Formats: sequence, structure tokens, C-alpha cells
Amino acid sequence: MKHLRKELWFNIPGRRGFVNITGEVEDLIQQSGVMNGLVLVNAMHITASVFINDDEGGLLHDYEEWLEKLAPFNASGDVYHHNRTGEDNADAHMKRQIMGREVVVAITDGRLDFGPWEQIFYGEFDGKRRKRVLVKIIGE
Amino acid sequence: MKHLRKELWFNIPGRRGFVNITGEVEDLIQQSGVMNGLVLVNAMHITASVFINDDEGGLLHDYEEWLEKLAPFNASGDVYHHNRTGEDNADAHMKRQIMGREVVVAITDGRLDFGPWEQIFYGEFDGKRRKRVLVKIIGE
Amino acid sequence: MKHLRKELWFNIPGRRGFVNITGEVEDLIQQSGVMNGLVLVNAMHITASVFINDDEGGLLHDYEEWLEKLAPFNASGDVYHHNRTGEDNADAHMKRQIMGREVVVAITDGRLDFGPWEQIFYGEFDGKRRKRVLVKIIGE
Repeated sequence: MKHLRKELWFNIPGRRGFVNITGEVEDLIQQSGVMNGLVLVNAMHITASVFINDDEGGLLHDYEEWLEKLAPFNASGDVYHHNRTGEDNADAHMKRQIMGREVVVAITDGRLDFGPWEQIFYGEFDGKRRKRVLVKIIGE
Repeated sequence: MKHLRKELWFNIPGRRGFVNITGEVEDLIQQSGVMNGLVLVNAMHITASVFINDDEGGLLHDYEEWLEKLAPFNASGDVYHHNRTGEDNADAHMKRQIMGREVVVAITDGRLDFGPWEQIFYGEFDGKRRKRVLVKIIGE
Repeated sequence: MKHLRKELWFNIPGRRGFVNITGEVEDLIQQSGVMNGLVLVNAMHITASVFINDDEGGLLHDYEEWLEKLAPFNASGDVYHHNRTGEDNADAHMKRQIMGREVVVAITDGRLDFGPWEQIFYGEFDGKRRKRVLVKIIGE
């Protein structure tokens, strides 16, 4: 069994943002030499997501608005008890649950085994700091 | 390490629908000869889901109503910017995030290692066209 | 390829609750002897979740309140058709979809390959009974 581990680092200038990381994951699969296997891509932080969807600007805008509706930002500890700890990011912990922590993708013939529009995104919900994504590849 | 890859095809006649695909995944595990490993089952399209829950008609009806409440269909580009591209399926991209893209299931003794009520579903949120699910099995 | 399978059992005294199971998963990885691979941790029941987030009491309280808002408990069959079957737990099937069924975590150097605050939780949404989580480890 072959395996490869790599961290991708991000520092999103705003509070929230989405970054397409498909190319970086594809490159790591080639480096690994794995022809058939699985790649796990996960946020290493609990206020961020890795998810797969369409790279279309309107849709990313819609996600932003929709998540704000389902889990609104509110810095006060009256709404979110988590924010009584000095944090203001309780909403980010919720947004991340909806979008998910991780994706697992098949590797076939040494490539991401993807449908026509699948793209891997890093989703940041509490940015302005350095944060990481883990890529772990196993197979042969 | 053994591995097997197979696509399952669907053409849901309505806009939305759920299909139990547990039997097909179980058959593929038997074909693979894998006794211990993992099976990844994922939608290859970004307006569809693969998820695990109960095969009970009332519940599937409830999911349908609940998802419509959390991410209502609205074809106009006023609500969802994605629909300014000529699409009308922004809601489907959201419904899919709640239900998830994929499941990873353990294979033990050559079978799906499942609790008593676990069943694998394909969830369609923008149907009336041919779409695919990927099954990737690894193990030995 | 090495592999290990183990069930963790729970009996949450209330209807809902969260249990940090990180230590138990870490112990199983050590038992498995796997240095590089993947661990799948999934609820075997369809009204429970396994998810990764922060072990902070305020946040767990916030999740509880937030999930109740997104998928309110209602025993009657008027709101949820699933509850016409004699069940009263339709809301639990929905809460579980938001929080997720499973996590897949990388194993590196014989340990959970985690960011600074990542912790694995069992999330119960229909308790007062014995229920299980499956841990499946593969790698070498």
C-alpha cells in the first residue's frame, strides 16, 4: 500500500471565503503514484469545511447567503453560549456542519474519479488567520 | 489490495426522488471479492446526494418537505444568483449539501457492515436526466 | 493490509446528548498496529451521528438549540408522516443528516492525524436505548 500526506495552508483575508483546491489535490495524487485508492481531504480546523460542488460564482454567493440564514453570525453570548468563552465564531461551527468537514474521493487510473462538474473547495467561516487542510492518499 | 469501480445510472422522472441502492452496492462488494475494506458510494453530480437512512415512505416524504423548507426551490435569479446563469437548480445544490455527497461504509466478512436499519439512498434534487453514482471498493 | 473492527456501545439517559469518543478511537488505532491508513467511525443507527468538532460545553449547548430550530421535535403525525408509523423520532432522522453519519480520519505514524481542536463525538438524537458506533481501521 502506498500513502502520501500533505497539508495545504490558507489565510483567507475576510471572515468567510471559498477556495477551489482541486488542482492541488490532483497534483498530490500524481506525486503519490497511487493508481487505485482513496483520497481523504479534510479541514483540520473546526470552523472550516472541505466540500465538493460547482465552481460558479453565483452559487458560491448563494451558499454564503444561505448559510447566513441557517446559522446567522451573532457575536453576543446571549444567542450562542459558545461566545461567552470570548469567541465570536459559534455560527462558523454550525456553518461547517452543514457544508461538512471532509470529502473522500476515489482515485482511478491515477486521477480523481470525478463527475463532470465536481470541484473540491475549502470553505472558510472564521478567517483572517492561518489554517490547514489535510490530504491523505492511500492505495496502490 | 483489491479494488473495484462501478457506475450506477439513474434517470428520475420527476424533479426529486429517492432510490434505495443498498442491494446494488452489496452485489458489487460480492463481485469485488473484498472481505475487509471500505466502500465509497458518491453522487457524481452536484445536485444529487448519496446518504444512509431508513427506507420508510413517511420519512422520505418528510425529508422532501423539510429540505424544501430549508432550501426552497426558486427559479428566479433574484433569490439565487446561480439561477442568473440560465439554471433553475440553485436550491438543489443546497439540498445536496444537507443530505451529503457520499457515504463510506465498512466491509467486514465480505458484506456491508451495517446497523439494523441502515440503507443507502440515491437522492435526486434536479432530475429528468441521466445521472450517475460511483461505487469504489478497496480492501482485501 | 491490516484491519480492525470494533463496536462502541452507548445508552444515553436523555433523548439527546453528545459524548466525546476520541480517546476510545485513539486506543483502537494503537491496538490495530496501523501506522498509515484511514479510520472510519460511523453511527450504526439512523437517528444518531458521529461528527468532529470542539469539546466546549457552550458549543454543544448551541448545537442542541440550533438543531431543534432547524428540525423541531414533534411527535404528531400531522407534521412528520414518519410519526404515523408509531414512531415519534422523525426530527432525529433530520438532525442526524445535518450533523452527519460518519467521519473518516487519517492515521499517520500510528495516531489520529488531527488539527489542534478536532475531537470525535457521538451525537444522540433519540436516546434512552442501547445504540452502537462502528470503528473500522484499515492500513499498514
